[in-house]
Amino acid sequence: MAEAKAAENVVFVGTKPVMNYVLAAITQFNEGASAVTIKARGKAISRAVDVAEILRNRFMQNLSVQNISIGTEQVQGESGTANVSIIEITLGKP
Amino acid sequence: MAEAKAAENVVFVGTKPVMNYVLAAITQFNEGASAVTIKARGKAISRAVDVAEILRNRFMQNLSVQNISIGTEQVQGESGTANVSIIEITLGKP
Repeated sequence: MAEAKAAENVVFVGTKPVMNYVLAAITQFNEGASAVTIKARGKAISRAVDVAEILRNRFMQNLSVQNISIGTEQVQGESGTANVSIIEITLGKP
Repeated sequence: MAEAKAAENVVFVGTKPVMNYVLAAITQFNEGASAVTIKARGKAISRAVDVAEILRNRFMQNLSVQNISIGTEQVQGESGTANVSIIEITLGKP
């Protein structure tokens, strides 16, 4: 059960202010998550890194970066299929 | 010597078109580098991920992601010190 719950602890970073996502991640940790994965694609990738850094430098200093992965997704756009980069950053308690 | 050379194989990603940095990395591999580290900060972080993904999906399919790290740097701005996120993605030959 704990494993299954951990897999759902994801924060999708989009175009809102960075602090919205920081608060979303803090909420998940406060609800018992031992790890939270921050996901983003395209231009939001920089914001995802900001979220992870602000979270572990300012709010939850005990967090460590457990994994970072990058990849490519295909997105249907107006003029056909386009490739977009993605990132997943997993932060966890020790 | 090989170790020392590898440490210098860095591509700093800024505001130029993505392909400029892809070509810079390909050049370093062609000159004998076994690994190249793509670095960026702030909004250029998304572009650094694009560079890594285009490089390994389209031009050098044998490359693998050896390491990805994120961090925070302090930058002197007009109105004092600001924090900026950084990323370092190391791609290497098998």
